[in-house]
Amino acid sequence: MIAPGSALDGEIAHAQSLGVSRTPYREALKILVAKGLIESRPRAGTRVTPRDRWNLLDPEVLGWMFAGEPDGAFVRDLFELRGVIEPAAAALAAERRSAEQVETMRAALAAMARHTLASAEGRAADQRFHDALLRASGNAALASLTSSIDAAVHWTTDFKARVGAVREAIDDHKAVLDAVVARDPARARAAMEALIAGALTDMRLHHEPRR
Amino acid sequence: MIAPGSALDGEIAHAQSLGVSRTPYREALKILVAKGLIESRPRAGTRVTPRDRWNLLDPEVLGWMFAGEPDGAFVRDLFELRGVIEPAAAALAAERRSAEQVETMRAALAAMARHTLASAEGRAADQRFHDALLRASGNAALASLTSSIDAAVHWTTDFKARVGAVREAIDDHKAVLDAVVARDPARARAAMEALIAGALTDMRLHHEPRR
Repeated sequence: MIAPGSALDGEIAHAQSLGVSRTPYREALKILVAKGLIESRPRAGTRVTPRDRWNLLDPEVLGWMFAGEPDGAFVRDLFELRGVIEPAAAALAAERRSAEQVETMRAALAAMARHTLASAEGRAADQRFHDALLRASGNAALASLTSSIDAAVHWTTDFKARVGAVREAIDDHKAVLDAVVARDPARARAAMEALIAGALTDMRLHHEPRR
Repeated sequence: MIAPGSALDGEIAHAQSLGVSRTPYREALKILVAKGLIESRPRAGTRVTPRDRWNLLDPEVLGWMFAGEPDGAFVRDLFELRGVIEPAAAALAAERRSAEQVETMRAALAAMARHTLASAEGRAADQRFHDALLRASGNAALASLTSSIDAAVHWTTDFKARVGAVREAIDDHKAVLDAVVARDPARARAAMEALIAGALTDMRLHHEPRR
């Protein structure tokens, strides 16, 4: 990875000397600018921005960060974000969910139970459950964090599968759904906190502690 | 605003008939694709994506949404997001903040008191206070929500200034800072919840209730 603050003008000249044509290269740079990863300034040229200005929660930036071996500290940050967002979303969903959203969560839970988290189908169903819950919060800003939450759910499940620690969390998910169906915000929040605490315990069994 | 699902191919042909040249137009479309606002598919052409797939928290997308008269429901969603994110960030900041981050918050608070929220300098200082707190959470995923939180802080302050409801919230901010300095997470969380509840009350006095 190119370090923040690096000037990219040398890279650009190099790419052009290799025959990369100007238009697609310029388009690629504009996309990186649009996602906050680089900036172009008169005189200063094109530079990698400091990491705290990257749009880390942009779905594509997340995909790029998880393309190689993901950074352990960032995985913990995403997990912590889940712990902040999902219990609050569960409480709001208990107040605002539609009957149709309940059906989507119910179908996802049934598919999780049928396929188990050991299979790709089961993991996709897990993701659908968490996505539907965020949308049921009725808050567009929270719902737009779906891809970040998905990345955290996906990576932690993937990590646990690799170390053989997949625990079928059907009961935890059912407790969340039951509270949302009962329109009980406090119980929905507590059930989601318990679900995330369970997943975090699974992780900690296999991971070094934070700092 | 062009409705989700609209085909843009007519627009593209129209722009070209007006003499907009192909390269900058293509670059602009790629940026909109990069931010999740439109998608191009073989045969289906270029279409506006459903709003729940927009990267609503992207700093530029937020800027565009606030360029005209902002959508009332979205302002309330951002405010609700503040209520989820900032108390949690305050609690983490109380555990993890550096002495330097405390100094940044202290300087911002002093500038807020000196300039008041009636001036642009005072509002910029308010923003610096909230930015520093999010960074002090030590969580890169939370810190990358800074621009969304800024937009909510900015717009609500701006709204209150227009209706003449600006309340100098120095004491509320000082209570948050004191708890962060004292490394007391529970008190920092409660102080931030009180700060946001105060701001929300100011808004509600002048705004119709939600749904």
